Amino acid sequence: MMDLKAVLRTVPGFPKEGVTFIDITTLVRDGHAFREAVRRLLEPFRSQKIDRVVAVESRGFIFGGAIAQELGCGFVPVRKPGKLPAETYSESYELEYGTDTLEIHKDAIDSGQTVLVVDDLLATGGTAVAVLNMLKNFDCKVIGVAFVVELDFLNGRAKIGDIPVHSLVHYDSE
Amino acid sequence: MMDLKAVLRTVPGFPKEGVTFIDITTLVRDGHAFREAVRRLLEPFRSQKIDRVVAVESRGFIFGGAIAQELGCGFVPVRKPGKLPAETYSESYELEYGTDTLEIHKDAIDSGQTVLVVDDLLATGGTAVAVLNMLKNFDCKVIGVAFVVELDFLNGRAKIGDIPVHSLVHYDSE
Repeated sequence: MMDLKAVLRTVPGFPKEGVTFIDITTLVRDGHAFREAVRRLLEPFRSQKIDRVVAVESRGFIFGGAIAQELGCGFVPVRKPGKLPAETYSESYELEYGTDTLEIHKDAIDSGQTVLVVDDLLATGGTAVAVLNMLKNFDCKVIGVAFVVELDFLNGRAKIGDIPVHSLVHYDSE
Repeated sequence: MMDLKAVLRTVPGFPKEGVTFIDITTLVRDGHAFREAVRRLLEPFRSQKIDRVVAVESRGFIFGGAIAQELGCGFVPVRKPGKLPAETYSESYELEYGTDTLEIHKDAIDSGQTVLVVDDLLATGGTAVAVLNMLKNFDCKVIGVAFVVELDFLNGRAKIGDIPVHSLVHYDSE
């Protein structure tokens, strides 16, 4: 089985001192590794119908687009404020300093649809919780949240609650 | 044949007065339309081997990710400054007011590879020309530039030169 962690690049000190950045560009530039990541992201959800994949700007769009293509399902972007042109739901969440806001189009998901949420990285879980809160505005069923990378030591998974969380590559410490 | 223009949404006055925004979210949320767009984006290039799809942040990532998945090729992101953690080439280009800069990782493309550039929208061509200029740093062959939407009245195509330009949906006037 392909070792996806081996094709990720870790960049100490980016974007600032004391932080190590996990770079997915070395994974996605490798066609085999990219397809393998998409296959494994979907593995626990294969038996369920997925109507829409909801992905978070910007790196989440790479994997979300690939998953939508693989399944033949619809793609829904979650974006920073002011990027989506029609009516939106929005949700703010706490950062280390200040807050951030995400938006989703109100007409992005139809009544009764099933949804898979995708992002590249599960860190503190702030983004994922904001997305899940926004999805409560819809009459939809979230079947899971899938990440390429999970930073286990930040314990973001604990914030997500009852919804199945699936990650491909784990980091146990900074 | 599916009318892709019919599933795009036009939003007059977004992001500012006098501009009409072409919204691709209504296309990509429709699984059939999304797959059809990906199929047609690749149509002129089907006979050629594509090693890497190069896509522009952020909406280009949706289509670029899907194309990489469809072809089993690598994906290369072009991003705004400060987002890519390793060594980059960068290129600045003129906007209506001021300039903008794009970056690509120096190790994104291997020597001798073939590349397809993908973005959602061809407007004035500034972004596309910046991407093509950055790609001159690599020993690669750009086989084409593919867009979902082309604003014909802005004549961006003329700036691109000899490289084949392919667009799915055309708008002739504001």
